[in-house]
Amino acid sequence: MKITGTFLDEISYDIPHQNWGRREWRRDFLNMRSIGIDTVIMIRCGLKQWLTYPSEILMRRQNCYRPVADLVEMFLELSDELGMKFFFGTYDSWCHWHSDHPEKELELNLQVVEEAWLRYGHHKSFAGWYLSQEISRGRKSVATLYRELGRCCKEVSGGLPVLISPLIDGVKENRKQSISLEDHQREWDEMFSLIRDGVDTVAFQDGHCEFHELSDYLAVNRQLAEKYGIECWSNCESFDRDMPIRFLPIKWEKMRFKLRAAEAAGVRKVITFEFSHFMSPNSVYGAAGNLYHRYCEEYGISTAMPEN
Amino acid sequence: MKITGTFLDEISYDIPHQNWGRREWRRDFLNMRSIGIDTVIMIRCGLKQWLTYPSEILMRRQNCYRPVADLVEMFLELSDELGMKFFFGTYDSWCHWHSDHPEKELELNLQVVEEAWLRYGHHKSFAGWYLSQEISRGRKSVATLYRELGRCCKEVSGGLPVLISPLIDGVKENRKQSISLEDHQREWDEMFSLIRDGVDTVAFQDGHCEFHELSDYLAVNRQLAEKYGIECWSNCESFDRDMPIRFLPIKWEKMRFKLRAAEAAGVRKVITFEFSHFMSPNSVYGAAGNLYHRYCEEYGISTAMPEN
Amino acid sequence: MKITGTFLDEISYDIPHQNWGRREWRRDFLNMRSIGIDTVIMIRCGLKQWLTYPSEILMRRQNCYRPVADLVEMFLELSDELGMKFFFGTYDSWCHWHSDHPEKELELNLQVVEEAWLRYGHHKSFAGWYLSQEISRGRKSVATLYRELGRCCKEVSGGLPVLISPLIDGVKENRKQSISLEDHQREWDEMFSLIRDGVDTVAFQDGHCEFHELSDYLAVNRQLAEKYGIECWSNCESFDRDMPIRFLPIKWEKMRFKLRAAEAAGVRKVITFEFSHFMSPNSVYGAAGNLYHRYCEEYGISTAMPEN
Repeated sequence: MKITGTFLDEISYDIPHQNWGRREWRRDFLNMRSIGIDTVIMIRCGLKQWLTYPSEILMRRQNCYRPVADLVEMFLELSDELGMKFFFGTYDSWCHWHSDHPEKELELNLQVVEEAWLRYGHHKSFAGWYLSQEISRGRKSVATLYRELGRCCKEVSGGLPVLISPLIDGVKENRKQSISLEDHQREWDEMFSLIRDGVDTVAFQDGHCEFHELSDYLAVNRQLAEKYGIECWSNCESFDRDMPIRFLPIKWEKMRFKLRAAEAAGVRKVITFEFSHFMSPNSVYGAAGNLYHRYCEEYGISTAMPEN
Repeated sequence: MKITGTFLDEISYDIPHQNWGRREWRRDFLNMRSIGIDTVIMIRCGLKQWLTYPSEILMRRQNCYRPVADLVEMFLELSDELGMKFFFGTYDSWCHWHSDHPEKELELNLQVVEEAWLRYGHHKSFAGWYLSQEISRGRKSVATLYRELGRCCKEVSGGLPVLISPLIDGVKENRKQSISLEDHQREWDEMFSLIRDGVDTVAFQDGHCEFHELSDYLAVNRQLAEKYGIECWSNCESFDRDMPIRFLPIKWEKMRFKLRAAEAAGVRKVITFEFSHFMSPNSVYGAAGNLYHRYCEEYGISTAMPEN
Repeated sequence: MKITGTFLDEISYDIPHQNWGRREWRRDFLNMRSIGIDTVIMIRCGLKQWLTYPSEILMRRQNCYRPVADLVEMFLELSDELGMKFFFGTYDSWCHWHSDHPEKELELNLQVVEEAWLRYGHHKSFAGWYLSQEISRGRKSVATLYRELGRCCKEVSGGLPVLISPLIDGVKENRKQSISLEDHQREWDEMFSLIRDGVDTVAFQDGHCEFHELSDYLAVNRQLAEKYGIECWSNCESFDRDMPIRFLPIKWEKMRFKLRAAEAAGVRKVITFEFSHFMSPNSVYGAAGNLYHRYCEEYGISTAMPEN
């Protein structure tokens, strides 16, 4: 099962920036397409005071800084050109929803979503929305955020799909007391029942549990998603959570293990967080280029540079 | 406002070494010059037992190891050749002044400064001194060190200028209880009153406070410096303090933000810590080369390799 | 004194993987040979559930995953071709011997060693064994493991030598209370008396004590080893333990210091942990290539790429 989607990590939270300009981004989109990636998901349009596009709402209401470039426009132009689908990630204030005021995060993002659609909705590659507030456990206040914000996204955009990518509260997330499979199932059963009207697709991150636990989690996630009519993808993380350097590219054997588990579980699509740092031949991390070569070998993909 | 000076991080404290020889250093000096850097500041001539030059005093008194190369001589020769100004950083014992015996650090460094001037003072590029004991808060014992050591530096060298680069005790330095702007102002007002006879220039590090606080700190620093007749520069850090990997190159947008803040505050010169790891096309970190390209684009600098 | 051996860090514990395939490994073996490395030591044949070769025993008894490639076969073929000596590292369950059940680790590895010899013993380059359970302090239960497992290794293989590489419980291993030289000597005197029948060679890791302490530790280690008829090597670590990024290549000057200390102590051979990440021109870490160049300069080694 191949990876056909990737996050674009802008604004990055904990991954150092590669300082790419348009030329470097275009080259990377070409490489993505050449290995079969058809979907790019901008993880968030803004984080705290940093923005991917000059949002009048966020500059006014959150004192965000005017960005040096309009990355949303650039990503959409590249997606238009190369026939890729672009998902727009919502704004993450960091403060509101973590301090248990998701209603403020919702209210703000309702405006952001309208603004974004007005500015960028004409692009043929604008294909969906990503709700950037990522959680691992059942939280009703976040369920409301997902449902209401997701509904709004769909309403303004003529029904474009809405994606979320939660965590598993496993041993690599919660080292003191990881969740049990049963509690995960119970909590997400309730979550899905609450958010089904606003969320079309769920792609759990696959890196927080032990490798031998992954199949069970994937199976539960798929069952729950099907029960509520939500499409189930897997977010196959391409960085290594087992190393003291946080984070560098994953070992190919681990990624292959997770891809096979996703295939066995019957998920519909595999995306990754994320191509450009961790599995691109253009990455500043040399092991990413090597991961790309191992991946291409496995799937019989030629690694000659694609025509530009 | 362009960066016209950089530290040379030898002996490095927390930045892994690039293992450059003379050829690699010369190439980097050429790149520095090509973007307008006219000043290089060797951050310290020794740290604990490691030395940049074979100091008889430090080998005898501190049991320092005889160094494999004379980096001071090499840096001065390259600076002579390329018309750059070299600042010599004092020795950092690590033990004396941290354990509140700055008088021992002073006594030792008075000898080191004399030795260094005797060995290297004939170089036309020897242009000043850097006091390597970096502090964030008012400490009278360190004020004495600055004043007396700075006076000695100037005396032996016919009045060459003395530079310090303090920290702001902000949220990225002191996560439990960052300083207030008022306390910073009060403490450095007193510090400057005590050190003015020994210190000519101050370049506060710009990376320890939140981005939105930076303008206020820059304004206060400039006011205080002017009040005491000290020249005010800014030390624009080129590594990213917001990431779990400590440290990789900064995101260009953050650096640009800080450069604009420095310009708005009217500082006289901007230096960086430091070019060779974090914004050089020769750096082992790929994002540094990309930062260099973004920086050069902003200022319209051609990035063709300079003639050697 | 030159480095003539290196570990192969598979399965890696805390060093991110470079994602090399056979072509990349072959190139690196060529580089190793070109600087005089004649010995490669695979640090372990498996760690927890990950394996370097498809061990039926470990897949059945430890639920290990079937590996994507047979690295042992590949390393042996490359060693055969290039005339190098290969040491096979035992399996590390991580759980048994850390939780003070070394007898389980022993019982399991007795089978692994037999299996490995049956599969790979015909290779002319199969030259010895490495006991992968690394300790710093005297532990009688681990002494039993070493002696019995080492005896078994020698018995099945017609007397091939057995290597261990312990730590010194110095300040960089045990920051709260590093061991004294006297306690180190006393504990390893007893350990050597217990393991002498199973262990032929000891190569203490050289990175956990302060640099100024290293000579004393090397002298003690050599004396103890000679007393019990064990050959004494040094394991000169090529990564830097003094930096917040854990781990990147060491500064050349530090490595040179440690090599000279090893030579002065009269050890018989110097190996390193390890060439491929930390001192190879093929490493994903740029400072490793620079370390290689500094090392080659010191020893007058031409760095033209060796014929393939």
